Parts: sequence; structure tokens; C-alpha cells
Amino acid sequence: MTSPKAGGDWQEYAAGFADRARRAAAQLSRISGADKQRWLLRSAERLRQNRDLLIAENRRDLERAPEFGLSNAAIDRLRLDQAGIEKLAKALHEVAALTDPVGEIIEGAVRPNGLNVCKTRVPLGVVLFIYESRPNVTVDAAALCVKSGNAVILRGGKEALFSNLALYRELRAALEETGLPVDAVQLVDNSDRAIVGALLQRGDAIDVAIPRGGKSLIERVAHEATMPVIKHFDGICHVYVDRSADVPMAARILINAKCQRPGVCNAAECVLVHRDIAGEFFAAVRPLLQDTKTQVRGCPRTRELLPEAVPATDEDYRTEFLDLILASKVVDNLDEAIDHINEHGSHHTDAIVTSDVASADRFLLCVDSAAVIVNASTRFNDGGELGLGAEIGISTDKFHARGPCGLRELTTYKWIIRGSGQIRG
Amino acid sequence: MTSPKAGGDWQEYAAGFADRARRAAAQLSRISGADKQRWLLRSAERLRQNRDLLIAENRRDLERAPEFGLSNAAIDRLRLDQAGIEKLAKALHEVAALTDPVGEIIEGAVRPNGLNVCKTRVPLGVVLFIYESRPNVTVDAAALCVKSGNAVILRGGKEALFSNLALYRELRAALEETGLPVDAVQLVDNSDRAIVGALLQRGDAIDVAIPRGGKSLIERVAHEATMPVIKHFDGICHVYVDRSADVPMAARILINAKCQRPGVCNAAECVLVHRDIAGEFFAAVRPLLQDTKTQVRGCPRTRELLPEAVPATDEDYRTEFLDLILASKVVDNLDEAIDHINEHGSHHTDAIVTSDVASADRFLLCVDSAAVIVNASTRFNDGGELGLGAEIGISTDKFHARGPCGLRELTTYKWIIRGSGQIRG
Repeated sequence: MTSPKAGGDWQEYAAGFADRARRAAAQLSRISGADKQRWLLRSAERLRQNRDLLIAENRRDLERAPEFGLSNAAIDRLRLDQAGIEKLAKALHEVAALTDPVGEIIEGAVRPNGLNVCKTRVPLGVVLFIYESRPNVTVDAAALCVKSGNAVILRGGKEALFSNLALYRELRAALEETGLPVDAVQLVDNSDRAIVGALLQRGDAIDVAIPRGGKSLIERVAHEATMPVIKHFDGICHVYVDRSADVPMAARILINAKCQRPGVCNAAECVLVHRDIAGEFFAAVRPLLQDTKTQVRGCPRTRELLPEAVPATDEDYRTEFLDLILASKVVDNLDEAIDHINEHGSHHTDAIVTSDVASADRFLLCVDSAAVIVNASTRFNDGGELGLGAEIGISTDKFHARGPCGLRELTTYKWIIRGSGQIRG
Repeated sequence: MTSPKAGGDWQEYAAGFADRARRAAAQLSRISGADKQRWLLRSAERLRQNRDLLIAENRRDLERAPEFGLSNAAIDRLRLDQAGIEKLAKALHEVAALTDPVGEIIEGAVRPNGLNVCKTRVPLGVVLFIYESRPNVTVDAAALCVKSGNAVILRGGKEALFSNLALYRELRAALEETGLPVDAVQLVDNSDRAIVGALLQRGDAIDVAIPRGGKSLIERVAHEATMPVIKHFDGICHVYVDRSADVPMAARILINAKCQRPGVCNAAECVLVHRDIAGEFFAAVRPLLQDTKTQVRGCPRTRELLPEAVPATDEDYRTEFLDLILASKVVDNLDEAIDHINEHGSHHTDAIVTSDVASADRFLLCVDSAAVIVNASTRFNDGGELGLGAEIGISTDKFHARGPCGLRELTTYKWIIRGSGQIRG
């Protein structure tokens, strides 16, 4: 895995990764669930055993962090300490405990002519995973890809290069020790962006690209990729408080959706309130907004009821704040709320608080989002919460995978047909 | 639906189609299965009632066919007669009888916190369908798209323009009569290729593009599209005759796979024969190949046993002949056959004829194709034969849909979550 010299041949360098991954994927698709299990557990063991080394390599990244202009929050996410490594090891055990998706029979039947047909889950093949910052993603992504029978090419951010390399070496050593193809997990150890471009040209060998990070990274990958891309764009999520809402419940759900972890994609960015309940609702939620120091950017009707709110611009209704800022709008009816969400939102996660069955049903039917929720926080659109186990991201696409991407979303299927000499008439 | 004048604004013209389709899709997603049913049956009725008009419009295409340099076979596919129209009407009844995919609960559970979660099938939204020649595809595609809750933009070939327009007018009249959004089905009535380019730029409004036709059409669409594409490339399909094969069965399967309809994608293009059975097999199949006038292009070992075979080039092993031509190779063992298929094939449909369980299992596991078959003809990789009902094409992709694309493959899903005030801790 030597990098080309300046001006070297990126195509050839990328081809090395792609071809090694292709070969590893062919082998991996034939490997038993028990063998993949052994690799996951051995990897956990190695991380625990080599804790001090990992922390030392992570320190090298932390020391370079100011060079890259990382914020304190970003440096915090970059840090690996004892507890962090224990978490990584535990995550590997959790992935090991998940049901192996490979070989699952999605559907099957005996046809009238006696043919036995089964639509059977198989790995996608080769995953190119491009991500930023946090080194724990290296371990999570490798675990999910290999568990689902895929070879993975990892391309992390330069800010975490030493940490990623150290983690990768443990995963690779565990592959060798447990007899799995060592190229099932590869890490691109070169920070030049040209390598990403060259890899994205290899749609013939790489089955899917998954970018995880800022919008510009995702856009670049989507634009350049010659293979399908699972995109994870904005989460502009809404809570709509219907006329018939239980007001304390609505206030509790909104505060949880907005404030429990404001920096994540399934946090709410906007509240829509039915005009008939707006007075009562804002009176109830006002102290909670003050307690949590949440700034409200409201429409004129919001501001009449919540004088401390600043005026909202149209842009505010299309913004993923990822912060303690909340857009607010009073609406005349349910359909205005639905239209606002479909037009201004990002089709990620939207919730209604209501006690009316017809309103709930209409909201669920008409809001075109990956997750639509009645009477619960938007924060529940998450692989773990929905029962998928760990996730490699939350797709904002409609194609192949929508919402949380767990093990199954890293697979495809093939049709297995068993006959006894049938021919077509 | 007026076309821009020469040099007019294709973007604007395309935007008209895309925006109308988007609005129709939003309405369609809320429409009951019974209403879609009514449209399908009314369409069938209208086709039967206006048979003479349809045949007259089709005649206009037939008269222009020599201008376009169509082969006799292509003219034959273009022709619509009484029987052809009855077939179209019957196909509409068949689609009406299929289970509505929208609303199907793919999986669901009550989570430990009491949240009720359902992964529920919903329409993709807007489908752009680009196809060549045969006018019956116009009706099939519209039926499948609308039945699955999608609005469709149809772009047929110029050779079938009058036929397509006449069929489209009936489908649209039926939409109006049954109260469905009329823009659920739109036909691009302009043959300029620029319109396709402009439509392919509208990934924001169109959810998927499905090209069906020659390789250059598919490549162009895949290259220019800003939305996902369901591709339908070559079918370079194999029959492998294992050492333990029942020879008469193997001969019957090969002849069916090659000759029953040589011009389709799931027809076999290559036979691989285990060396230990090659003598017996070629002796059995030889008269059948002669009867069907099938030319064999073989490796040296094939030609020793089948002297009339011409020498095969490496290119022959990578060619979709779509004709009564068969590539042939004698192999030393099962793994050589598997490697040949994975390397030279198109991952479409491959069959083994064997009486050995271990060989069958290894072939099914290791051949990376949309359909892998034991002891039956490759011709069974087909929506109808696999129980999907009608199909809009056979995907050679791995992503989203693999193999036959029926109603379900024209859908996505959303997560529906019902709570009673749950928040995340």
C-alpha cells in the first residue's frame, strides 16, 4: 500500500485498492457467519489489549488538531480515551450479536411448474466508505461491512489519520489471525483528495459509495461517483402540534426533539402549531425553551404569543441549525402543516402530536419522509431505536435504502431457482 | 404539451413534464387501490372500443418504418393488430389483478419502549421511462407505474410515435374518466433527443430513470442521469453441464435456454461442459443443435468432439449473440466454470445441470448473478415465471432491484412510528 509520488498515477493506486477489495469480496461471500463472528470478537480483544498504543497514536492526531483548525467540539469527538476504546470493543460485540443478514430468504415459493424459487439476501460486494473526523466510525463501518459480507475501502479524514491507521492495523491483524481475507478491510493511508476521485471512477469494481460528513463532501461524492451512492443529507425535521394535541405531551416531545442532542440529524429544527392551540401550547413550552436557552425564530403569529422570538426568514425554514435554535410557524390547519413540511423539509423525520385518529392517519399518509411519527420524538429515527441494530448512516434517498442503514441495507439479493429439468414452453 | 420551437428552451419544456408529474405523484400516493383498479379496467375497455383508431394510427408508423431503416423483425414488433390490442387489454386486466404493493408492511415490531414501528411500502414518486420500438411497452409501463402509485413520464421511440400517442390518449382519457390525476401518465411527444437530456437533469423531481433498449441508450442514460437508474444491460447467460449431469436433461435444458427465444436477455449464450462428460454430452446434443440450426463456436476440446464447430475467440465468450449462435468451452472442473461465468458473464442468469448436491450448492453460492439456477432453463428468470407478475424490465444492477422489476421494485418504503408520548433518554 505505497502511495504514488507527487504527480504519480492515482488511477493505478486506486485500482490496487479496488482490485484487492474485489478479490476479498469474492472470498468473503463464501465465508460462514461463525468466521465473521470470530473476527469481530478477536478485533474487540485486540483493541482492548493494545489500548495504550491506540491512545498514543490518537494523541498524535490531537497534537496536530490545531493545525487543521478544529473546534473544541471537533477535538472532543476526535479524542480516544480508555472509556472510548472500551466503547469500541463493546460496539464490536454488539455487531457480533446481530443476526447475519447473508442467506436470509426474503421471499420464496414453489411455482406451479415445480420450480422452487427463493429471493435470497447476499452481500453487495465492495463498499467505499468516505467519512470525516471521529475515529470510532472506522471500527463501526468495518464491522458492519464485513458482518454483511462486504469488503470495505475506508477513507477517513486527515485529522484522524494516525488514530484510524492504528485501529485499522488491529482490525487487519485480527483478519489474519482468524483466517479471513486481509483485504476485507483496507484503509486509504493517503490524504490527497485525488485518490477519492480515482476511486469514485471504479464503478466497475466498487458496488456502492457511502459518504458521511458535511454537505459538500456528500455533494462531491454524489457528483463524481460512477457507482450508486447512499446519501445522508440534511435533517430538517418538524414537530407539528395539531389542534387536538395533548399540550404537555407536545411540549415534552418538542423539547426532547430539539434539545436532547441538537447537533444530530434527527433533531427537530422547526415547530408548526395549529392556530387554535397556539396560545395554550406556547404558554406551556415557553419556560422549557427558556430553561434550555433555545432561541426561537418565529412567524408574526408566533411572535405575538412568544414576544422574545426573533422574526423568522424563509431561509430559517429551510435550515438545519444543529444548534439550540428553533424555527416556528403557526398554521391554519393540518394540510398547511403537511404542505409546509413537504416543501421546506428534507424528507428525513417529521412528527405530529395529536389525539385525533384522522389527523394522525392523514399526516402519516401525506408527509413524504423517511420516518413519520405520531406522538413521539423525532429522535427515534435511528437504527438502534427502530430495531436494526447499529447503522452506517441514515439515508435521505428513496432508492435502495431509506432512513437508517443497518446490515440489511448493505446487502442485495439473488434469485435462487431449483428445478428438476424444467424448460419453458 | 407544446414543444419548444427549434432552439427553444428544453429546460423549461422538461420542467413542465417534471412538475406536472411531481404534483400528480403527490395525489396518486393518496389514492386507493380500488381507484387505480378502476383506471386499469377502464383503460382496457377504451383500447378495445377504439381498436380501429389504434390500428389506423399504428399504420402511420408502419408506413414510415422504411424511412427509419427498420428491419423486418423490428417492423413485426411494431405492428399492432386486433389480436395485439386484445393482448394489451388482457395485460391491463392482469396488472389489475396483482396485489397492490402500496401499504404493504415489510416488517414491523413493538419496541421495548412501546413504540409501534412499521416499515411500510410507498411509491417511489416519479418514474422516467425511456424505451424503444414496441408500442405495447407504453401500456405495460404506464399500468405498472400507476398501479404502484407512481406518476410516469414516457419517452418512446420515434418509430412508434403515432401508435404511442394514440395509446396514451386512451390511457389519459381513462384517467380523467376515473378521477385520477391526468398527469399520472405523460408522453413526451417530441422526438428531439435534447428533451431526454433535459429530463435527466431533473433528479430533484424525478425519482428514477428506467431505460429499456439498446446498450448505447442505457449507457447514455446512466451517464447523464442525475437520478438513480435501473439498468438493463446484456444477458450473457451460461449453462454449465457438470460431471454428474443427467445428459438428456442437460441437452433439453441447453436447447431450451438457447433456442426457445434466442433474441431475449435470459437466453443462454454459452455452454460450459465438464471434460469427463463432454463426449457423452456433445453426442447427445449434436442432433438437436443441427435440428435448430445453431452455430457453435467452440474451444479446441469442443471442436474435437463437435467437428462442425468454428473456433471461438475470447470475444465470443463475452458476446450476447441474441441469435442461434452458441459459445462452448470444455472445463476441467466446477471451479473453472464458476470463474469463467463470473469473469465473462454479465451477472444476469446462469444455470448448472448436475445431480450432485455439493456442486449445486457451490454453484449457487459462488456465481454472482441475479438468478442462479439448478437443473432448469435460464429462460425462467422472468417476472411472470418467478411470481412477480408483469415486469418493467430485468435489472442487471445490484442496487435497489436485481433481476425482474415488478410492482414492488417500483416502490420504496417509509418508517411509520406510532407512540404515546415517548421521548429519548
